[in-house]
Amino acid sequence: MSADPKDLFEQTARLSEEVTRPFPNSEKVFVTGERPDIRVGMREVAQTDTPSEGGGLENPPITLYDTSGPYTDPGARVDLTRGLPATRGRWIEERADSEMLTGRSADYARERLADARLEDLRFPALPVPRRARSGANVTQMHYARNGQITPEMEYIAIRENARLAEQRDRYAEAGIVARHPGAGFGAVLPDVVTPEFVREEVAAGRAIIPSNINHPELEPMIIGRNFRVKINANIGNSAVSSSIAEEVEKMVWATRWGADTIMDLSTGKNIHETREWIIRNSPVPIGTVPIYQALEKVDGRPEDLTWELFRDTLVEQAEQGVDYFTIHAGVRLAFVPMTAGRMTGIVSRGGSIMAKWCLAHHQENFLYSRFEEICEIMKAYDVAFSLGDGLRPGSIADANDEAQFSELMTLGELTRIAWDHDVQVMIEGPGHVPMQLIRENMDKELEHCLEAPFYTLGPLVTDIAPAYDHITSAIGAAQIGWYGTSMLCYVTPKEHLGLPDKNDVREGIITYRIAAHASDLAKGHPGAQIRDNALSKARFEFRWDDQFNLSLDPARAREFHDETLPKDAHKVAHFCSMCGPRFCSMKITQDIREYARRKEIVDAGEAIRKGMEEKSIEFVKAGAEVYRKT
Amino acid sequence: MSADPKDLFEQTARLSEEVTRPFPNSEKVFVTGERPDIRVGMREVAQTDTPSEGGGLENPPITLYDTSGPYTDPGARVDLTRGLPATRGRWIEERADSEMLTGRSADYARERLADARLEDLRFPALPVPRRARSGANVTQMHYARNGQITPEMEYIAIRENARLAEQRDRYAEAGIVARHPGAGFGAVLPDVVTPEFVREEVAAGRAIIPSNINHPELEPMIIGRNFRVKINANIGNSAVSSSIAEEVEKMVWATRWGADTIMDLSTGKNIHETREWIIRNSPVPIGTVPIYQALEKVDGRPEDLTWELFRDTLVEQAEQGVDYFTIHAGVRLAFVPMTAGRMTGIVSRGGSIMAKWCLAHHQENFLYSRFEEICEIMKAYDVAFSLGDGLRPGSIADANDEAQFSELMTLGELTRIAWDHDVQVMIEGPGHVPMQLIRENMDKELEHCLEAPFYTLGPLVTDIAPAYDHITSAIGAAQIGWYGTSMLCYVTPKEHLGLPDKNDVREGIITYRIAAHASDLAKGHPGAQIRDNALSKARFEFRWDDQFNLSLDPARAREFHDETLPKDAHKVAHFCSMCGPRFCSMKITQDIREYARRKEIVDAGEAIRKGMEEKSIEFVKAGAEVYRKT
Repeated sequence: MSADPKDLFEQTARLSEEVTRPFPNSEKVFVTGERPDIRVGMREVAQTDTPSEGGGLENPPITLYDTSGPYTDPGARVDLTRGLPATRGRWIEERADSEMLTGRSADYARERLADARLEDLRFPALPVPRRARSGANVTQMHYARNGQITPEMEYIAIRENARLAEQRDRYAEAGIVARHPGAGFGAVLPDVVTPEFVREEVAAGRAIIPSNINHPELEPMIIGRNFRVKINANIGNSAVSSSIAEEVEKMVWATRWGADTIMDLSTGKNIHETREWIIRNSPVPIGTVPIYQALEKVDGRPEDLTWELFRDTLVEQAEQGVDYFTIHAGVRLAFVPMTAGRMTGIVSRGGSIMAKWCLAHHQENFLYSRFEEICEIMKAYDVAFSLGDGLRPGSIADANDEAQFSELMTLGELTRIAWDHDVQVMIEGPGHVPMQLIRENMDKELEHCLEAPFYTLGPLVTDIAPAYDHITSAIGAAQIGWYGTSMLCYVTPKEHLGLPDKNDVREGIITYRIAAHASDLAKGHPGAQIRDNALSKARFEFRWDDQFNLSLDPARAREFHDETLPKDAHKVAHFCSMCGPRFCSMKITQDIREYARRKEIVDAGEAIRKGMEEKSIEFVKAGAEVYRKT
Repeated sequence: MSADPKDLFEQTARLSEEVTRPFPNSEKVFVTGERPDIRVGMREVAQTDTPSEGGGLENPPITLYDTSGPYTDPGARVDLTRGLPATRGRWIEERADSEMLTGRSADYARERLADARLEDLRFPALPVPRRARSGANVTQMHYARNGQITPEMEYIAIRENARLAEQRDRYAEAGIVARHPGAGFGAVLPDVVTPEFVREEVAAGRAIIPSNINHPELEPMIIGRNFRVKINANIGNSAVSSSIAEEVEKMVWATRWGADTIMDLSTGKNIHETREWIIRNSPVPIGTVPIYQALEKVDGRPEDLTWELFRDTLVEQAEQGVDYFTIHAGVRLAFVPMTAGRMTGIVSRGGSIMAKWCLAHHQENFLYSRFEEICEIMKAYDVAFSLGDGLRPGSIADANDEAQFSELMTLGELTRIAWDHDVQVMIEGPGHVPMQLIRENMDKELEHCLEAPFYTLGPLVTDIAPAYDHITSAIGAAQIGWYGTSMLCYVTPKEHLGLPDKNDVREGIITYRIAAHASDLAKGHPGAQIRDNALSKARFEFRWDDQFNLSLDPARAREFHDETLPKDAHKVAHFCSMCGPRFCSMKITQDIREYARRKEIVDAGEAIRKGMEEKSIEFVKAGAEVYRKT
């Protein structure tokens, strides 16, 4: 696939078939905020009625949190060569604390821009970058601490609620409201998320809104343990590069299945140009690990890295609109020897780059010693820190060791510094951790990093299943999400073995949506159980299509059902191929319930106790058929 | 596929290629017990040496618990038409408490045997069934309580240890012993499992050895929370039947990937004959749900079920050699109305059959009222109870409700009765349970069922991911296994959607091996971490083949790696396609370690603190290359 803009333009048509097809029986709906330019897109899944023998009730549409942006909206016109509309543009301008630049501030960006050979690769509609006015601080944390509720915060409040308050009565009528209290380990989950609650959480540092002023295209979202658990998907080309078009498509594909943020981990050619295409077309925040690009600039030799070069890279990426940076500032010189006795040493790429730099120069990590200078850059664009865990364990043998926790404490120290600058922070976490040691990771993070959002990679709970590490890690991810992790970085089946392809990305994201949702349920997130209940009710009433449509992967659920029962008639059949048509367990309760309903007795349980004998006679009379043969 | 014995015989050749191929670089080894006819098969995975630049150390072979019986042993001659050798035959005879029968005791078995039309389907080398002598009790629990250590118990002790005591020193030398204590929630995990410990656990009812005297072909195994967590795989044809040959192949396939027991849930034609083929060729215990076959005998009409018919079915199956029966004796008449208000009513097939019977007759469940009579049958053959949870929740909305826990308490009551007869018991558990409610299930089971082994189906921690329910359930299974569940019933990706095929069976089993192993690690099972550590060490030393060979699914791990780096040379390369050859994070620690080793200083951490500056100079001098380009 070529990266020629014309090809990309042509590809838009192809995307519209494969990647932008709306989900079945789903509609994009918009909820408007106090100001009309706050329009929050959500997905609404329509349901069919309960069959008349089950009561004939109407089943309300279910509103779902939606990460896919305009790509699944048939009403939106997507043109990858122009990028998405700048949703946040006016809000940023109105704040009047940033200014348009006359050119790029980074040397490297100017070089690339001046290079005529890159003309065919370059995003055609390059925006003019913005930066905070001298002395200004444009972070959401800064606004929050000054008591200001931004449109981004209001947008997020609406988005997190997913119309629950508005629809609660209809959900209750359909019998699909939550039944279980959660166990949130100190999380505070309000029934209705208000803009003020969002502001408070951001002000306290318990949540972040990754939202670079140079990424006005994004749909604001929040990462914090008192909100829905989020997931991140990694994309990016490597030395044997995939093309720009492929990376853009992967980004759209990932948001389709539910990625809340995307990290672009490209390390091959044309990183700068690839990133521009991705950001301009991404409805979700984009994160990067700037040290990767810095390393490319010194031809892969960590010891040649300098603060000046790194600084230029930060500015280059900040002016493109990267929303959060992974910075491995906790890999201190003194901690490197602690990894000598490990089973698997240092497995973070960024961590090992910095460890090597420290050893080569016998100096303190410059990311640590220059941390305040980095903060100055972050607050001029509102780039959030994702403080990298360069010393995370690469095997369960190394979990929770001295190196790991020494770094974690340093990340807490750096969090305080960043907060002094009103810069948003999240903390990266492991890795490989057996189940009995997971909780300690969360507890220590909350303690040492002052409740800054935790962002973990899994953790994998065993090392023995390469090719299934999306599963080994989802087991750990669901647990740590329940304990309080705010965002889970996905792992694909290819982890440890190779670069994930499109199918791996889908598999990894669905697996992590499962883990995140399981966490939300366990914490008792308001409304999380609505979707489970709606799907289970559909299953019980043999509304097969509704069951598929409400699932995380409607296409695959339908495909699996089709394998044995492909006919349309089977989609209303009162059986599936597991038990066959002869008998299905779920019908008998329907009989019991139907009986109670006909008797018009409110307390169904009592009704049936009383009517049991009568029912018994009736059953036998009726030939005791629990269903009509189809 | 036809079920003609000739075809099955021909199929043996095919099995030897696809299903009986030994695992790569693995050998079947045998550990002999006190008596020479106790020969416990295990799998030994050979490893290559650590490369010379990493120290050149020899890496010991790793011994793994092996469920695949003779099928992966190139030295064994498998003939499906004759069945496996009767490993336990002599032990059973020697006890002299059972007798050969002159014919089948069950009416139905005699009918089938007399039916000439079944000649082509019938297993050709039908064994003569055995039964306890009048007044005798042939259960392992009975022996255990009388202080008798059976060969089965000794076999199990050897098997559970997997040569750990013998190899501990070599493992320690290679640096792969466990580093973390577990959190066993009251589990007692001895360093070395002795035959006496096995006896005590069985005597106390905390563990069972499913081992019908009519299944002498099985390799004894134990289910209990103070032993390795086990997994079960379900097979079985349904109305649109698969053939006998396919079911036998599925059984072999399932044990290959790690199924510790198999449940034959067939409901279609020729259940009796299919079961015979499976048992005769199965190295693992076989469980069934006898009510399924009983229902077939009354043409699918639950209300026509009778105690006499059910009794005949129990005897029929017991004399074939079924090792455990799921019996839904806890679905009491009074509990049925408790399901009326549920989201998904009764979802257990056996549970709904009995509920319907109760309603139709307005009588107490005959499995409950005849429970002592059932015990008499169980102890005459040593069939273990798997007390079914017919009222388990079918959605997270219904988790931990009155119906479920009422049944659980009844199962505890029945456990006491079974134990009065020295009949072995395990307890079936849910189902669909959100994470915050899982622990309560385990705690209540231990309390009400007196620590009888718990055998759970998942639980699924969310309902929103049909087509991925192997994953939603593995998250719950790993947790409940950690809390104390002894056996996990697998769930495949087809759950709720259709009948699993061969790929689904493999996917489900590997997923459940992950969950079970994660539980063993978290509990601190002695030796469980050896495999993780060995694999991680291989990964860190770029011994790719060893990494694949030690994994749960060597074929898939290799296949994924081959997708991007197919060449043989890549299997020793110091990189993978994730990061590419330019830089790999894992090499730097090797440099650090190598340095410490050369200095011959014992305390590596201290060594490196001291030598840091020197190292720094050396690094730069050497061009700071962390690896040689390939």
